[in-house]
Amino acid sequence: MLELIVGIDIGGTSTKFGLVDTEGKVVMHDSMATENPDINGYLDELVDTIKSEIENLDKPVQILGIGVGAPNANYKKGVIEDAPNLPWSGEIALADMLESKFNVPVKLTNDANAAAMGEMMFGGAQGMDDFLAITLGTGLGSGFVSNGMLIQGHDGHAGELGHIAYKIGGGRLCKCGKKGCLETYVSATGLKRTVYKLLADHHMDSVLKRCSFDELNTKMVADAARKGDKVAQEAFALTGKVLGAKLADAVAHTSPEAIFIMGGLAKAGNLIFDPTIKHFEKNLLSIYKNKIKILPSELNSTHTPIIGAASLILNDLKKQNEVPV
Amino acid sequence: MLELIVGIDIGGTSTKFGLVDTEGKVVMHDSMATENPDINGYLDELVDTIKSEIENLDKPVQILGIGVGAPNANYKKGVIEDAPNLPWSGEIALADMLESKFNVPVKLTNDANAAAMGEMMFGGAQGMDDFLAITLGTGLGSGFVSNGMLIQGHDGHAGELGHIAYKIGGGRLCKCGKKGCLETYVSATGLKRTVYKLLADHHMDSVLKRCSFDELNTKMVADAARKGDKVAQEAFALTGKVLGAKLADAVAHTSPEAIFIMGGLAKAGNLIFDPTIKHFEKNLLSIYKNKIKILPSELNSTHTPIIGAASLILNDLKKQNEVPV
Repeated sequence: MLELIVGIDIGGTSTKFGLVDTEGKVVMHDSMATENPDINGYLDELVDTIKSEIENLDKPVQILGIGVGAPNANYKKGVIEDAPNLPWSGEIALADMLESKFNVPVKLTNDANAAAMGEMMFGGAQGMDDFLAITLGTGLGSGFVSNGMLIQGHDGHAGELGHIAYKIGGGRLCKCGKKGCLETYVSATGLKRTVYKLLADHHMDSVLKRCSFDELNTKMVADAARKGDKVAQEAFALTGKVLGAKLADAVAHTSPEAIFIMGGLAKAGNLIFDPTIKHFEKNLLSIYKNKIKILPSELNSTHTPIIGAASLILNDLKKQNEVPV
Repeated sequence: MLELIVGIDIGGTSTKFGLVDTEGKVVMHDSMATENPDINGYLDELVDTIKSEIENLDKPVQILGIGVGAPNANYKKGVIEDAPNLPWSGEIALADMLESKFNVPVKLTNDANAAAMGEMMFGGAQGMDDFLAITLGTGLGSGFVSNGMLIQGHDGHAGELGHIAYKIGGGRLCKCGKKGCLETYVSATGLKRTVYKLLADHHMDSVLKRCSFDELNTKMVADAARKGDKVAQEAFALTGKVLGAKLADAVAHTSPEAIFIMGGLAKAGNLIFDPTIKHFEKNLLSIYKNKIKILPSELNSTHTPIIGAASLILNDLKKQNEVPV
């Protein structure tokens, strides 16, 4: 009997899901759009797809549990609460909903908490007791591990660095209703906004002038930057400047050994890592300087969110000593 | 045999110390200036005073250990590293130095971490697994507890919120060499700087115009504010505005149940708590609003730092089940 965990990562644009074995190997993965404003319709599509994928494996399978990473997910309550990047408002009792469909344990957490858990169990954070994971997708997520444990917080909502202020009470309007939130500058969307700000403020020529806001994506900006496009290069430089400064502040909270950066924007490699590291070091208090590594995820980045979500269940099983991981 | 712990709190201006019993009761307390630039001379004075105070108790006493709270103290290494508010530069191996004088275990941590530990063991945070302690003295210190454990961080330097940026790369020059650090706005010194900024920028009359910068202290500003002095009131309002905004960001890191504010500036009561709470709620992400308590320390605030420092040892003893606390 093949023992598998369902890992689901709900992002603002797409939902990635897959089946993960007890050693963190992804045996099936797929994705669908996160666009259906009716949560029941969305969930029916997701569940049907997962169930048919399990049947397609054509082997006897036991599903040990379902782990879900999602923005504004509350681990303690098993719900998603008012996630500004998702199409559903209010409180979504996702853990209960999925449990009724599969009859297995369901764990839900902030997508970046899930990514941190995956990195700790199977990635570059193996053996680390204190680190931070930052996910750069449609928004910016974060997961803190201190004393070897994921910080969920009293209310189950720890790690919402996307909504700390880059500019207090001013700056770009965020989907959450506040102004100046970090993710309005540092995320796939933030990068696009920075490109458009540069095009508005300057008169440099740029291939990015041929793209609509809706067409533009991180890869296009990265390709242009590598070909020498000044606007694209400056957009990455500014994004890294903001991220580096705010990560320096995050360090003063929990003093991590390393910070892992993952998600679509992290795939831009040196374009984002170089300015981030430069401004990180520049803004650190002297006691932290030249000590803290800023690293890409060591998991296959396409699968990181799925492995991370599944790790929520695997970590529980590990604690119960049911699975030797 | 009376079992006691020595608690020492090294602040930028004065060093407070005392003898604490296993139930958190302070049986002796005293203080001295933290001004001797020679660490050995400073330590000789401190040790001599403590030893003679122990003799003065005129009872058989067993010292179980020494706990020290100090800025930039590294728990893991037992040293103070480059503390900008203290008269000694470089790395001070205080744990070893004190251990050689008393021959008992010595634990050293960030002064605010010690305060958090005291609050958890004997104050308002009893029973809380996730909270934050903020000390407002010459500087601003912070101690985080998550999952029921003090966050020391990989390097032993967690909780240096005094040096997160209120204004990134700009603003007031800090003793640490950076600009715009939170404690240059929110601390006893920060309040004085704000008073002087207001006197520089406006032409309102104020009793504070009769004080030199060196004479001015928090109590004088608080007394003036209570008597209706507009400059003093505005100085507190601005200090709370900055603190509230930055605490809202701190919440997004670890999602605490409560934030305890202690130290000299906290004694100003509503003058500092009211604007802090107002701007805290204003800057919180919706999922955190109206849930997180901002509270004064429940320990006698004069003794909080001493009890906190002693709690480092008491917590260890509790873990070893040697003392029923």
